[in-house]
Order: sequence, then C-alpha cells, then structure tokens
Amino acid sequence: MQIDPSKNTVADNYKLLTNLVIPRPIAWVTSMNADGLINLAPYSFFNAVGADPLYIIISVGLNDAGELKDTGKNILANGEFVVNLVTEDLFDAMNISAADFPADQSEIDATQLQTASSTQIKVPRVELAQASLECKLFNTQTLGKNTLIIGQVVMFHVADHLMGPRFHVNGFAPLGRLGSPSVYCRTIDRFDIRRISYLEWQQKKN
Amino acid sequence: MQIDPSKNTVADNYKLLTNLVIPRPIAWVTSMNADGLINLAPYSFFNAVGADPLYIIISVGLNDAGELKDTGKNILANGEFVVNLVTEDLFDAMNISAADFPADQSEIDATQLQTASSTQIKVPRVELAQASLECKLFNTQTLGKNTLIIGQVVMFHVADHLMGPRFHVNGFAPLGRLGSPSVYCRTIDRFDIRRISYLEWQQKKN
Repeated sequence: MQIDPSKNTVADNYKLLTNLVIPRPIAWVTSMNADGLINLAPYSFFNAVGADPLYIIISVGLNDAGELKDTGKNILANGEFVVNLVTEDLFDAMNISAADFPADQSEIDATQLQTASSTQIKVPRVELAQASLECKLFNTQTLGKNTLIIGQVVMFHVADHLMGPRFHVNGFAPLGRLGSPSVYCRTIDRFDIRRISYLEWQQKKN
Repeated sequence: MQIDPSKNTVADNYKLLTNLVIPRPIAWVTSMNADGLINLAPYSFFNAVGADPLYIIISVGLNDAGELKDTGKNILANGEFVVNLVTEDLFDAMNISAADFPADQSEIDATQLQTASSTQIKVPRVELAQASLECKLFNTQTLGKNTLIIGQVVMFHVADHLMGPRFHVNGFAPLGRLGSPSVYCRTIDRFDIRRISYLEWQQKKN
C-alpha cells in the first residue's frame, strides 16, 4: 500500500512515521534554565550520529503553545545537557516527566528523583540512570517545526555493575520507543550474529 | 563509573556509544550510482527527526579506504534514497548486504532480493520490506568522520496486512540494533502505558 504524505494530515503523517521508524532509543534529557531550574523530559527522536568525535542528535518539537519545548530553549540558551538512558525501573518517573509541566516547575521534584553532579558541565544527571552522557551543544538546525540539536558527548557515566573489561557493557537493557501514542518495548530478547566479510561471502558462494 | 572520551581510543569510544545508545532502528538503505547500480546497506545511526515536514536522518561513516561509504556518495550525487525497515525474515539478507562489497557490485544481486519501483524517485525499494520510505535529500552536515544526511520522506510503502483504519499499524516488529559488534533485539515484548497530563498528575498528587 502506498501512502502519499502530501495528501495526509500532519497528525496522520506523524503517526505513520513514528509507527514505522522503530525501535527508537529514548533520551531522557536534563537541562537547566536561567534560574537554575532543572528540566527533565524524554525524546525518542534521538540517536548516536558520530564516533570521532562523539556526536548524538535529539530533535525537539513545539509545546502546546507553539513554542520550542523547554528542553530546546534551555540547550540553546546555555549549550549544555545530559542524555540519561531509561531502564524499566525508571519508566514511571519517565512517564511523569513527559507530562506538560509549566516551565517554572521542575520534573525532578515531581518525580522525586535525585540528581548527581556532572563533571564537564553544570547540568546534572539523573542519579539512578544506569548510563548518562554529558553533552555540549555542537550546533542546531531548523527542520520545519522541529529543532535538530547536535551534541558532542564529553563524559560517559555508566553504572559500575554494567562495565566489564575493555569497555564491554553487560546486561544493559534500556527501553525502546515504538508507535504512537504510547507503546514501548523491552530489549532483552536478543541475538548476536556477526557480520561477514566480502571475502567470506565469496568463499561461501563458490 | 566515569569514562572520559578524551582519554579513550576512537574504537573504545565507538564501542561505548553504540552499547549505550540503544535500541537503534535500522535503515536498510537503497541508493543508486551513476551507472544505475543499486547499493543496499544497513545503518543504525538513523531516526525520525521531524513530522511537519517529514524528516529522517542517517549518518554515514567511512569505508576501509577512508572514503565516504557508497550509500553516502550515491545520495550526495543524486539526492535520492529509500529507507527499508528490517524485519526478522530479512535478517540474513541484511547481514550479507553489510559486507564490504566493492562499489561495482550490487548487494541486491548478492542477496538475491528483488526490488520494486518507487513512485517519486528513481531509486527502487526492497520488494519484501514490510515498510519503505522514499526519501529526497534535504541537506547534509559533516560531523567529524561521519556525514549526517537529512532526508525528507516523500512516500510511504506499508505492507497491506499491517494497515488498519486511520493509519493504524498493527504487528510491525522490525529488529533493533544493540551493542557492538553485532547484537540485535526483537521488538515483540511490548507494553502500552499512555502519558499523563499535568492536570492528571496534579489531581493524583493531591
């Protein structure tokens, strides 16, 4: 079936896109406003985009008032944010933080979470997160009603129990975001099949 | 545990980043070179980034020769590509297409897949893919050794059996990409918990 987005409503296009581009990783972003208030909100338009240097993107949309969401405003204002990853034990807190809180109310207080200091930036991380990435704003790009934020990762925080020798991460299972309005997946049903080389493929073929 | 990327090797940083930013959706990208040869390769630095208009990103790295991979070269040259999503039935073909084929050899032939015509662009899609997004290049950005490619989705293709009324997608379960070197997850272990509003949160709290 073909579906032409130019003949669809924005809402239907959004629904299709977010039902098809799955599973999406979830950036649970801490940012800080000019008064020092910590904002916390989840974004699934998120991924790694570069390893040398280390870059990630998040794409931030508009709030109900048609303005850039607080996370975006804060990052544009001071250039700093932390991406915390969301494991299942943190789901309820993440879901509360996704509500449309006013800008002067911290989702950190509402969720009764604690923060822990970052090392390279002023914005703190979520203490209970098993992994957090301290990020500095690299640049931004306007994409229609979204603002694409490109950040450089300047520090990793990883729970001790996850780290094996040589940067091997064991048993880390953050949730994935699936279709709208509110479907998520666990990431514990895994398999490991290594990539083959062109040479191996040729040998196998002949 | 804190891990400072400025004190790490590029390989260790890549390993950490790709073990922590998970699960990643997989773009199985068809593109076309100047001779009409169809390239097919998977990219997990991929996500939706905008709904109005519809934008997606993929980030393409360098090949073993230190040059932009063929997918990136082709998209920069003619501005067109298709993102096909990868369900488990297509895993073996995807894994073959990830091998380091020379530029003059089509992964479509190697995987014995068939393509089907696109409607808005010349680059075809993978016929067996349950979902494909025809994309036109919007712009690019250099991010160190990666090239961030921003595409606008100009046509959706969705398998008939997935589509219910009002653009509801049922039972679509593409694979997710987890840590390096080669771990994947299924996306069938799901749950659905709707977001609460600020008003609901206030009422619950009081």
